[in-house]
Amino acid sequence: MPIIGRKFLITGGASLIASHLTRALIAGGASEVVLYDNLSLGSAALLGAFGSDARVRSIRGDVLRLPHLLDATTDATGIFALAGYLTLPFAENPAAGADVNVMGMINTLEAARLSSPCRVVFASSVAVYGSDVEGVVDESRGFRAGDISAAAAAYGASKLLGESLGRLYAQRYGVECCALRFSTVYGEHQHARGVNALYILEAMQALGAGRPIVVRGSGDEAHDYVYAGDVARACVRAMDAAGAAGAFNVASGRSTSVNEVVAMVLDEYGARLEPEHVADTRTVRSTAHHELHISTARAKEILGWEPAVPLREGISRLRRWLDAPERSIPS
Amino acid sequence: MPIIGRKFLITGGASLIASHLTRALIAGGASEVVLYDNLSLGSAALLGAFGSDARVRSIRGDVLRLPHLLDATTDATGIFALAGYLTLPFAENPAAGADVNVMGMINTLEAARLSSPCRVVFASSVAVYGSDVEGVVDESRGFRAGDISAAAAAYGASKLLGESLGRLYAQRYGVECCALRFSTVYGEHQHARGVNALYILEAMQALGAGRPIVVRGSGDEAHDYVYAGDVARACVRAMDAAGAAGAFNVASGRSTSVNEVVAMVLDEYGARLEPEHVADTRTVRSTAHHELHISTARAKEILGWEPAVPLREGISRLRRWLDAPERSIPS
Repeated sequence: MPIIGRKFLITGGASLIASHLTRALIAGGASEVVLYDNLSLGSAALLGAFGSDARVRSIRGDVLRLPHLLDATTDATGIFALAGYLTLPFAENPAAGADVNVMGMINTLEAARLSSPCRVVFASSVAVYGSDVEGVVDESRGFRAGDISAAAAAYGASKLLGESLGRLYAQRYGVECCALRFSTVYGEHQHARGVNALYILEAMQALGAGRPIVVRGSGDEAHDYVYAGDVARACVRAMDAAGAAGAFNVASGRSTSVNEVVAMVLDEYGARLEPEHVADTRTVRSTAHHELHISTARAKEILGWEPAVPLREGISRLRRWLDAPERSIPS
Repeated sequence: MPIIGRKFLITGGASLIASHLTRALIAGGASEVVLYDNLSLGSAALLGAFGSDARVRSIRGDVLRLPHLLDATTDATGIFALAGYLTLPFAENPAAGADVNVMGMINTLEAARLSSPCRVVFASSVAVYGSDVEGVVDESRGFRAGDISAAAAAYGASKLLGESLGRLYAQRYGVECCALRFSTVYGEHQHARGVNALYILEAMQALGAGRPIVVRGSGDEAHDYVYAGDVARACVRAMDAAGAAGAFNVASGRSTSVNEVVAMVLDEYGARLEPEHVADTRTVRSTAHHELHISTARAKEILGWEPAVPLREGISRLRRWLDAPERSIPS
């Protein structure tokens, strides 16, 4: 779907990614962007952040209420399906997490089906690989629960199911759908629900308060951090790339350990406080590996997308946002 | 949970497996067995099949209606979570399939949580391996969508999610849950919804009508056929094995090609009609491999369970059931 002159709906419209995506869609010439969010996890401030722009409309709505979602989708030519429970809130409320991630996706696909032609870009996750992330991880890799937590496995399985439902709706009802498998997304409008992005946020908050950064365990656990603005560009490309189907890794392609994150944050703040290492007692954790190489070759080839903002630069941007007066982090 | 003197609930109570399981539970000394089924897929005849036995009670209820399910679960010490959409009905109605397989499982876990202590035995499937079934398949194998159909992938992912939710409820609420990964289940009270069990049924129906058996494709596609009575024993053992957690393959451990199934059915009927080979044009198919070796070592070690009825014998039993007057196959 071309972006210029079109209407788009974003479920989970009051989220980190949605805030960057809305900006990208408006910049790309969209005539209308509807932010749809029930604010159970999203931020009310974000839902109102574009208040002065007549092209952005906010609806306080729930993806589990199909009639409301159908109404909001009228005349949209694309839906960005960002509404979902990440691993941490999923662990807190498994019933709500399963409902939103699965039935919310069903309702979104139904809305696209009934507003046809309407393309869906689904926010999936590299959690669909579970613990199976040795070597270079491309999209053909399977899911293995291995030793990951029950919540991380349930979250990953819910995203796998969402992707499969997209394939099924494409086959059965002709709804175009593609899935973007995000790694750890961070950036301005950061929230505290991403289990791995928390490493950045907690380090900044500690330094901001003059406390040493606390590292759980050895700190050599590695993650792939991708900047929310890069993710937003990938979403736009996936919507624009008519016929692109299946799943695409959307990641930085770089492996960064917690210790490296801490060093960057220390550098950003010009601080010399030694981090404090404590024992790791968490029961809800994501996959933990010493190296993580997520291939973005398919996204480059088919969507023409590549990550652009290095982590060090993203950390500076996040800090500038965080330092603004009266800033608070949505939980 | 011991079986003697206890009450058990079976969701999907009007199903192939439930009919064998009810018999096994009564034989094992259960004081009450509640068959809970909304008859959207189940068979009304099966729900009434134990009408003369006061220990068996039938409730026409929906797993998606939590208050009704909670009421039916009162004083039960175990739930067999058999309600679910198999691949074929899932393909026909993805929204209902996702709802029943995921939110139905959530409701079942909630019922167990609120009737605590109440153990759950979840009907999972070897579909959780997707196309990744080369070599000996034990429970550590991951899920790979590969080239399987969207419906088979969605079905497998829904079962993976059900298993993960069981782990999450165990961790969070202390609900004991274990998952049995069934291969292709067949037996008396066979229905027409199992994409692979259909090979047996269609062959019998063809011969019964004096027509040649039709084989789609080469017929060397292999499956693992496990007798419903063996599956019922595994369910009882899984309920009885206090503390047994995680997932167990419940299968024959034997690889049987469609051509071999056809040969056994021909032998059973003493028929010499040559099968007719036609092109395979199905869009909804399960995984297709030439060899399938599903390990049941874990079920043997921890549950003390082994399959007992060979396919040739099971086919005889199925035929005797099928030949009874006024028998019809539930779709």
